[in-house]
Amino acid sequence: MNSSIDFYFDFSSPYSYLASTRIDALASELGRTVSWRPILLGPIFKQIGTTPLIEIPSKGAYMLRDLERTAQLFGIAYLSPSPFPIATVKAARAMLWVEKNSGEAQARDFAHRTFRAYFTEQKNISDLEIVLGILSQTGLDPKRAAHEIEQENIKVALKDQTADAMARGVFGAPFMFIDDEPFWGFDHLDHLEKWIKHKETKAART
Amino acid sequence: MNSSIDFYFDFSSPYSYLASTRIDALASELGRTVSWRPILLGPIFKQIGTTPLIEIPSKGAYMLRDLERTAQLFGIAYLSPSPFPIATVKAARAMLWVEKNSGEAQARDFAHRTFRAYFTEQKNISDLEIVLGILSQTGLDPKRAAHEIEQENIKVALKDQTADAMARGVFGAPFMFIDDEPFWGFDHLDHLEKWIKHKETKAART
Repeated sequence: MNSSIDFYFDFSSPYSYLASTRIDALASELGRTVSWRPILLGPIFKQIGTTPLIEIPSKGAYMLRDLERTAQLFGIAYLSPSPFPIATVKAARAMLWVEKNSGEAQARDFAHRTFRAYFTEQKNISDLEIVLGILSQTGLDPKRAAHEIEQENIKVALKDQTADAMARGVFGAPFMFIDDEPFWGFDHLDHLEKWIKHKETKAART
Repeated sequence: MNSSIDFYFDFSSPYSYLASTRIDALASELGRTVSWRPILLGPIFKQIGTTPLIEIPSKGAYMLRDLERTAQLFGIAYLSPSPFPIATVKAARAMLWVEKNSGEAQARDFAHRTFRAYFTEQKNISDLEIVLGILSQTGLDPKRAAHEIEQENIKVALKDQTADAMARGVFGAPFMFIDDEPFWGFDHLDHLEKWIKHKETKAART
């Protein structure tokens, strides 16, 4: 059986959002599924010692322009998020809770709604009330969620997922693995596609 | 008249090399020319305060893998350079000298040969003798070159070009401008192509 594409993202990463709009269709075209894995970039940047792009003056200005342009060129709805960047620990924990309680499909639905809220409606998804509102839209109980996402098992699950990502070499987002091959960044969805087709062509020849 | 694509690169930047193999054909397809502009990334990184990718452990390992894979997927000859990174001040000055004395076409020829020497033959282009050898291949006088690339006018030309690049927002390489629109990185050649076609389609409609 073909392995899934492991898709690591942070809900405040604009390039992760862009990738989130394309990855399911790409995986489907390649005969794969996607394993959606929220992580926190903050602890990763801290451990590696890198600075977020947005905090480096010339890179930050370029990034804002590139994001608007990339969204336009690829036909992706996008409104520059504000405030930016934000803490996404609540959104990420909420997603892990949805996955645990209601399965992957519902968790993916929550992820899409959360990305859209932040990157197309400028809703501040660092705010618990906003996150709970999204959970309500998907038919889940916000009161129960508010309680359970603060429990130790969910906190640990997110820490572990972030640590696992780092152990695999993740240093930014989006970061994808297919058959353990690593691909970093929105632009590398194209590389991932080329790579798997190249590999399958070779396999078919032998 | 359509403006040229301004192509800023450092001779020790592998992604610049990858871009160098595609940019002339891309420009030609878009009805543009390319203005090849060697710069030094060292002073730019120093001023901005960024660290070269290769010096960040997880990013460096990813980069080496990504370079080999990207070259393979795009059908570009590539041999991981060694030593890496290197000082490219002599190669960059030599290119500016060729341009001044023999024109853009010969300078571009020198640039292609220099990139190939480093990225397909593992020749150490920080070594003056290697650079002079490449100049000889293009029919230029290595003795005269050795003297003239140490003159103030050439030194200043390279400093100015690097400073001009920074003033335009260049913070890495390759970095391209088309009609003053900035594009960073090998992957962004595709964005540049999409952008100009999008712009021309819009212009044709009005």
